[in-house]
Amino acid sequence: MIDLLLRDAAVRQAARSLRPRGDLEHTVARTAWSVIAEPGDGAAGALIRELGPVEALRVALSPEDGTLLSPASSVAPHMRRAWAEARQRWRPRAHEEAVERALRSAAQVGATLLLPEDEEWPRRVDHLGYHAPQALWVRGDAGLLQRGPRASIVGARASSAYGEQVAADLAGDLAAPGAVIVSGGAYGIDGVAHRAALAVGGATVALLAGGVDRAYPAGHHQLLARIARDGAVVSELPCGSAPTKWRFLARNRVIAALGDATVVVEAGWRSGSLNTAGHAAELGRPLGAVPGPVTSPASAGCHRLLREYDARCVTTAAEVRELWGETSGERPNGEKAPHPDRTRLLDALSSRTAVTEEELARRSGLDPDRVRAQLGLLELEGIAHRTDRGWRSSGAG
Amino acid sequence: MIDLLLRDAAVRQAARSLRPRGDLEHTVARTAWSVIAEPGDGAAGALIRELGPVEALRVALSPEDGTLLSPASSVAPHMRRAWAEARQRWRPRAHEEAVERALRSAAQVGATLLLPEDEEWPRRVDHLGYHAPQALWVRGDAGLLQRGPRASIVGARASSAYGEQVAADLAGDLAAPGAVIVSGGAYGIDGVAHRAALAVGGATVALLAGGVDRAYPAGHHQLLARIARDGAVVSELPCGSAPTKWRFLARNRVIAALGDATVVVEAGWRSGSLNTAGHAAELGRPLGAVPGPVTSPASAGCHRLLREYDARCVTTAAEVRELWGETSGERPNGEKAPHPDRTRLLDALSSRTAVTEEELARRSGLDPDRVRAQLGLLELEGIAHRTDRGWRSSGAG
Repeated sequence: MIDLLLRDAAVRQAARSLRPRGDLEHTVARTAWSVIAEPGDGAAGALIRELGPVEALRVALSPEDGTLLSPASSVAPHMRRAWAEARQRWRPRAHEEAVERALRSAAQVGATLLLPEDEEWPRRVDHLGYHAPQALWVRGDAGLLQRGPRASIVGARASSAYGEQVAADLAGDLAAPGAVIVSGGAYGIDGVAHRAALAVGGATVALLAGGVDRAYPAGHHQLLARIARDGAVVSELPCGSAPTKWRFLARNRVIAALGDATVVVEAGWRSGSLNTAGHAAELGRPLGAVPGPVTSPASAGCHRLLREYDARCVTTAAEVRELWGETSGERPNGEKAPHPDRTRLLDALSSRTAVTEEELARRSGLDPDRVRAQLGLLELEGIAHRTDRGWRSSGAG
Repeated sequence: MIDLLLRDAAVRQAARSLRPRGDLEHTVARTAWSVIAEPGDGAAGALIRELGPVEALRVALSPEDGTLLSPASSVAPHMRRAWAEARQRWRPRAHEEAVERALRSAAQVGATLLLPEDEEWPRRVDHLGYHAPQALWVRGDAGLLQRGPRASIVGARASSAYGEQVAADLAGDLAAPGAVIVSGGAYGIDGVAHRAALAVGGATVALLAGGVDRAYPAGHHQLLARIARDGAVVSELPCGSAPTKWRFLARNRVIAALGDATVVVEAGWRSGSLNTAGHAAELGRPLGAVPGPVTSPASAGCHRLLREYDARCVTTAAEVRELWGETSGERPNGEKAPHPDRTRLLDALSSRTAVTEEELARRSGLDPDRVRAQLGLLELEGIAHRTDRGWRSSGAG
């Protein structure tokens, strides 16, 4: 298959434009895998890891079971079985024209093909093991996939005005000082998060469930074009691929894997965002959920994450940054609780009449030494002052 | 002191009315301690546990340090020092007239004095150790303090419409099948929780920071009178005591100790409810917090509880019941069926014409008491309202 494709000048040209410094055979083999295997195909991941993409493709498409798949090979029997099965689904999809179309369409829209062997490859997605992406098609700045910190901000398509407000605030506040906002390009929370990042001149990455040459949803045509220009639009699937239910679910694992933390802003009880959150939790990545009114169905999924997935409650950008270990100087609670003696003494003091120390001891139920100690402190702070006839609080009046 | 007081016929009579089967000397000594020691006074708690209230009082008020306080005694030195110090604050407060006044005011308002040696004493407050209440003054049904399950529902005085709605729903839904709603009688969330429990014919307990003869806040005069009649109004402090900042904080620990679970519905960043929540957490009692909009300052304290106190996110009564280990068939996805009475009553109501309670009972096939209970809830929720000629639903039209 590869030999056939490489004989086509248009294929060679497209492959060169996608990976100027890459080996042509390698580029074409990876493209073929991107066409043949669905995202997250563990059998493909394992075979490519074992043999490299070119040889793996030969074995996968050979009409005969190769030595690797024979009972004599040193490969574990369950893996051999998985490969033998997988060949049944790979071979019907292996068409030269499909691979050629993928290469040419990508070259046409100026996409690049990012591969695990590239320096720019985001290593974090490799934590998905055999189910890790085997290739990423990128329109825009591929470097954003490695730049940190990255916050994956996702949520319901059917978002409320409240959720959109919070998503915009969080994404803007995170992106302004340099975090990359990763999301899924969908209507609702995703779109708001992307837009807020762009609005502050920040960086954002949209992970699509179909090819990067297709705007999905169509209503986000302009937004995705802008992200492709100022950020990055990314997909595992080759150009021309339509998003499917499965591809949305598979895409979610990449969003979770790319983020230093994943935050769900709003989600219905069975929202796809919970799937993204589940992947983040499985990967051991920090997971945050934004609470909302218990009366809002759009927050029910977030509350479920707090209850069932041990998600962390996040309400501000600073709290999202804490998810990846960034501590902020801001301590919104600043003051610690007052000493109990102090409270009791303040209750006993009056701003209108002076009270003797003995009387203060009686009123407060504190012993005289402690009364005197606290009075000293209060005097220092200008809260109480001494008069001829005892102590008065310095409050108004 | 006790001998002197017992010579007074009025004192003897008051003591008898407070504890008909109790030992008079004991009742008077406990009353004296209630007057002399502030709530949560650990030195008093330890001394009373060591010697019993009568002898403890004698030692506490004796002008000379007793043998117990002498270096020769077997009591640990730090405890002797604590007692020696404590005597300095107790003795100035030990006035016969104050004790007599406490006894007579309590008898006048028909309060009872519940003591740790009583069968009806709520054992759970003893988990506070030396800081446990030494006496509880009760107006109403003291038995409610032992009846379970008990949900302590607390929250901000400065509550929002959202918080009030949620507090009413939770308290009503918990109280209707029999849970006792414990709260602090304050404006805002506390008051809504008490009212919702009463509205469904449920049980509720108000823990006050001052004497049970005083309505605090004054605007809750009628509500507290109703709770004293249909539930219980309870305080550690003797009649005549004014609430102080310290007493509010001390009172909160009793609310936390009484609840099988504590739920904070709304709380500002420094709300007193966080203090109650902190006590619940310290006691190892289940703690729930109701989330709300991150944009609402009235929910900031609840989110803080979720983040810093490991509170459990609760959004429904069923989820509150889970806090004390009750599992429900209801799926907590917000789709739980409304109470059947409610559905039938809503069908019977009209937004165009007022309908009398009798007619509602006839139309719905519910008995009049249940009609009234449900109407109370619907009124609280703003779904139905009372007119001159009966009830109307408040919907549009």
